[in-house]
Amino acid sequence: MSFDTLIINGTVVTANDAFEIIENGMIGINGTTIATVGPKPEDGSLPTAGQVIDAGGGIILPGLINTHTHLPMTLFRGLADDLALHVWLNEHMFPAEAAHISPETVRVGTLLACAEMLLSGTTTCCDGYFFEDSVADAFATTGMRGILGQGVIDFPAPGIADPAENMAHAVRFVEKWQGRHPLIYPSIFCHSPYTCSEKTLVAAKREADQRGLLFQIHVAETQTERSEILATHRLTPVGYLDRLGLLDDKTLLVHTIWVDDADTDLIARRRAPVSVTTESEMKLASGIAPIPDFIKKGIAVGLGTDSCASNNDLDMFQEMDVTAKLHKVHTLDPTVMDAKTVLSLATRDGANTLGLLDQIGSLAPGKQADIIVLDTDAPHLMPIYSPVSHVIYTARGADVRDVFVAGRLLVQNRQLLTIDLEDVLAQATRIGRRIKQFQEEK
Amino acid sequence: MSFDTLIINGTVVTANDAFEIIENGMIGINGTTIATVGPKPEDGSLPTAGQVIDAGGGIILPGLINTHTHLPMTLFRGLADDLALHVWLNEHMFPAEAAHISPETVRVGTLLACAEMLLSGTTTCCDGYFFEDSVADAFATTGMRGILGQGVIDFPAPGIADPAENMAHAVRFVEKWQGRHPLIYPSIFCHSPYTCSEKTLVAAKREADQRGLLFQIHVAETQTERSEILATHRLTPVGYLDRLGLLDDKTLLVHTIWVDDADTDLIARRRAPVSVTTESEMKLASGIAPIPDFIKKGIAVGLGTDSCASNNDLDMFQEMDVTAKLHKVHTLDPTVMDAKTVLSLATRDGANTLGLLDQIGSLAPGKQADIIVLDTDAPHLMPIYSPVSHVIYTARGADVRDVFVAGRLLVQNRQLLTIDLEDVLAQATRIGRRIKQFQEEK
Repeated sequence: MSFDTLIINGTVVTANDAFEIIENGMIGINGTTIATVGPKPEDGSLPTAGQVIDAGGGIILPGLINTHTHLPMTLFRGLADDLALHVWLNEHMFPAEAAHISPETVRVGTLLACAEMLLSGTTTCCDGYFFEDSVADAFATTGMRGILGQGVIDFPAPGIADPAENMAHAVRFVEKWQGRHPLIYPSIFCHSPYTCSEKTLVAAKREADQRGLLFQIHVAETQTERSEILATHRLTPVGYLDRLGLLDDKTLLVHTIWVDDADTDLIARRRAPVSVTTESEMKLASGIAPIPDFIKKGIAVGLGTDSCASNNDLDMFQEMDVTAKLHKVHTLDPTVMDAKTVLSLATRDGANTLGLLDQIGSLAPGKQADIIVLDTDAPHLMPIYSPVSHVIYTARGADVRDVFVAGRLLVQNRQLLTIDLEDVLAQATRIGRRIKQFQEEK
Repeated sequence: MSFDTLIINGTVVTANDAFEIIENGMIGINGTTIATVGPKPEDGSLPTAGQVIDAGGGIILPGLINTHTHLPMTLFRGLADDLALHVWLNEHMFPAEAAHISPETVRVGTLLACAEMLLSGTTTCCDGYFFEDSVADAFATTGMRGILGQGVIDFPAPGIADPAENMAHAVRFVEKWQGRHPLIYPSIFCHSPYTCSEKTLVAAKREADQRGLLFQIHVAETQTERSEILATHRLTPVGYLDRLGLLDDKTLLVHTIWVDDADTDLIARRRAPVSVTTESEMKLASGIAPIPDFIKKGIAVGLGTDSCASNNDLDMFQEMDVTAKLHKVHTLDPTVMDAKTVLSLATRDGANTLGLLDQIGSLAPGKQADIIVLDTDAPHLMPIYSPVSHVIYTARGADVRDVFVAGRLLVQNRQLLTIDLEDVLAQATRIGRRIKQFQEEK
């Protein structure tokens, strides 16, 4: 037996169907795929391999899956905080986007975001924004895996002065990228039921369906949205989307906070997956999505960071930790959302929400080799009793040492191998200065 | 003008009375004290200095203040998670303490905790545990600043088989350490109103008062505690402590979750400070302490991590971030607990809760030189629009580069200068293996 890459000397948290933990495990990779996962041979012999990665006694995990981002907004990290949602959006985000979002800033923002995600162990993200073609171009250079959706909204948006053009842009993006790159899965991102007309919603979903694509939509994010849609349509936001025929297993519902029992029953019946962005929803004071209920009803749930304008980072380790803790205190039940459940959300369940569970989300033979290695040789990670609890409650993005996507090493010893970090930081700094100056002159 | 140490080339977040931010600032240190804080001279000239620390364009902050820890329990990090409080305590923590806590494990656990705290920018902590003499011995070697309290509880406790002995232990500890070490402030830590008799509570407070010491006590942590004390004493936990004469500005109330308006009025009137351990309280599902109310009523509030058995880390950056976000979503108001307010809790307000605001908690001439430098040259910290928002919502413990306590450099370029980390990690690993084996054989 021979492998391109062998990873040894770590505790493997497989996140496979049986959620097996393998102490002193070994993973063999051939090409883009995991060939074998198991214990290291007891006689100490190793199969031959092109390269051997010694995990140094650390923890080996599936790459984390961030199911909701707006990557270029990384350039707006911390631009406006601690504000009411409508002030934040109307007085800060929309003007900043109008003034600064261009194919070039989208490219730099995407690379900055990918650098942060890779260094903190995220191997797949599901994005939705504008100029998504520039997102995809930049993304493709990094070697990450992405579900990338061009935004559709019935407002003027970056790159689309006339909203009547938005569908054409989305279709053009999808046609350009479908089947073009093995790690890029095009998608359509419809902004929300309150920013898109019925006609737009239905047309966008039809375009996605005709091509077998994931359709992403923000829904039931705020109390205001819920009451407005109830007033206008006599239906909850989720009920309204269902009436339009939008709910099925290829429609990713994002946020999904202000839902009642009938809504979650409906989501479950339609097998629609959900993406919750806990920290962003906390920071914007949107509310708390009922993840334990979703899980109880068999709904596929993933976690996302949302954009750096509202979080303000892309660290999925902290997202997991905070998600676990928030639901415990919210329900006053410390057994709710245990470490294994939460790790599942960021790995196998996240893959499931994106329709990619056959390819990613766990460490198992035949799956894509999206793998991360955590360095546990640090005071905040000692001692180790349970590797899963450690991953959720103690480890941080900064503890990620190595990252593979599709068998390719993208981060080694905390260094990015496919992104020229110095160059990206210099460009991001320059753009940041320009944005800051613009804000100050406003 | 000449200084022992000069820190230059960073944005200084002073946390002083006016909460000034100084771009391209300069701090001069002489001996243990800050001599000057201000902008770097415009002509580029620098005063003479024994050493110059170049902050590399990063952020310079007061050292963070962790107002509630149980340091030796760092050895129990992740030993038992996702459990109901009484199961966690009675079936896991108390047996683990009985089996494993000794002066030697306390020494190692303390050093492990200090390594983690220093590397993540905490310069002062307020601790309460048993064998506190061993905590203090170990602590003194690190150069950190600590308020250290020997525990008093009417149960058998580590090192005190007979509860009748607990006061004598506490008094002996205090008498040994008072005035002995400039960075160690002895204290008395009375466990709680439900684990200590009236007699013990009153006697412990009297011993603290006679010596002018901080008296620490867990109070109103759970609903159960509140209802039991209401049933027994016809008073809320806070009301009960007040009836015993325990509430004053030298009694640090820890957790203080299940309080009503009358309780918080009483706390404010007695000028008692409060320590909230947000993440631990979330993970144990204890509840949410009404920090915005405390602040509105003028109560001094600090943040703490609690022990690594319930958090599971000592990172005050994450504690700040989660505290801000939790209260926003809990009140559905994103303007609540803004970045400046939360940074105050972990610096100047925390110092105030410990009665040390004249010495630490901000960067101002005459204060102790407890200073940290954040390295912002990383993708997750770009761009920077507001340094204060950055510290709360983006920076992590791992971003701390340099740490001074009382003018002495304890961490330089992320390396500990006063702790033999390799040795501590080896010892912690050995003890961890023993604990794990014990658990498995149980």
